[in-house]
Amino acid sequence: MRKGEQTRAAILATACDMAAREGLEGLTIGALSARMRMSKSGVFAHFGSREDLQRAVLHAYEQRFVAEVLVPGIAAPRGLPRLQAIVEHWLRRTVEEAASACIWISGAAEYDDRPGPVRDELVAMVRAWQRELERAIRQAVDAGHLSPHTDAAQLIFELYAVMLAVHHDARLLQDSEALVRARSALQRVLTTYAQDPPPVARRVASRASKVRVRTDTHH
Amino acid sequence: MRKGEQTRAAILATACDMAAREGLEGLTIGALSARMRMSKSGVFAHFGSREDLQRAVLHAYEQRFVAEVLVPGIAAPRGLPRLQAIVEHWLRRTVEEAASACIWISGAAEYDDRPGPVRDELVAMVRAWQRELERAIRQAVDAGHLSPHTDAAQLIFELYAVMLAVHHDARLLQDSEALVRARSALQRVLTTYAQDPPPVARRVASRASKVRVRTDTHH
Repeated sequence: MRKGEQTRAAILATACDMAAREGLEGLTIGALSARMRMSKSGVFAHFGSREDLQRAVLHAYEQRFVAEVLVPGIAAPRGLPRLQAIVEHWLRRTVEEAASACIWISGAAEYDDRPGPVRDELVAMVRAWQRELERAIRQAVDAGHLSPHTDAAQLIFELYAVMLAVHHDARLLQDSEALVRARSALQRVLTTYAQDPPPVARRVASRASKVRVRTDTHH
Repeated sequence: MRKGEQTRAAILATACDMAAREGLEGLTIGALSARMRMSKSGVFAHFGSREDLQRAVLHAYEQRFVAEVLVPGIAAPRGLPRLQAIVEHWLRRTVEEAASACIWISGAAEYDDRPGPVRDELVAMVRAWQRELERAIRQAVDAGHLSPHTDAAQLIFELYAVMLAVHHDARLLQDSEALVRARSALQRVLTTYAQDPPPVARRVASRASKVRVRTDTHH
């Protein structure tokens, strides 16, 4: 690696660390250059603007996420084992990084009403991740491990929900039970979709506009 | 209402609006006084510090939340109908306010690693809300509407997960299907806990450390 590349990599690593602690919006060229003991123009020489730097941090985060979640997940046999492996690596990463924040999750709160290239980048990454999940879900359906009636978008919503909750409970509430609860919830979600047809999806399709639970047996 | 109280209420309303858009951390006495066309000392006369103002915003948010979610929910008959009514009002509020942010959710991302009185206040409010949910769940168990084996903390985790996901998808992804997906997920969660015993909870208890789904029938 050439000197210039080394410097760029060092700046980016520090920026990733700062973003995980302070949020992407907390990332300023001023604070970064102070921490790197560089001039602001030295940082600008490697990243043309604050926005470029924020997008570079998001890309670096995505690369690590893919390396730690998707790559080991894909090593498992296609079908439900692979989907489970992906979800388990995702869960572990979400809980492990509860010490700092998941930039995608904290970024969602920062940018959901802040239009611009950083938000666009973030949305594109979340969508790309959801497409990877969808691929694994379709393979699990094709393998007969999940119901052919599986609504992939619904299942992705439910998996994502658990990850958001474990991040919330582990970080804000510092709840030591969060991981166990998340595993229990994920298991229930996947078990439901392994049934054919998924018991609720069918009923919901016909009356999606109202939350109803059958309590007939109790009345 | 006396003049001083009116002014305080007007400042607080503007502060709530700003916090919903910019986050609690985006709330500064400077920006607020500029928007109110008041002097900073005029604002300080009503709120002794920025932290006091942030906590007052959180309290105002809690009051509105209770008025719009808990009060109408409690009007429903005790048991599952009440729990469902609370959850439905909570869901509606979460989606409706997707235009601005839920201060509790955006605040979680802002304060989860920022110790201090604002964070403490936020955690106390989330915990208080979870105790209300727990009360409704216990009543539903007592009424025989939910399984006597219901793990209330687990059910709260799963309900919260759906609310975090609908907030995420409606705001960041601007996904118009988020509400339908949330209703479907909530219905499945409550249906599961209406069964006795809940199909997964039992199995998970004995092997909480591993995500496993029974796929025996498929192999």
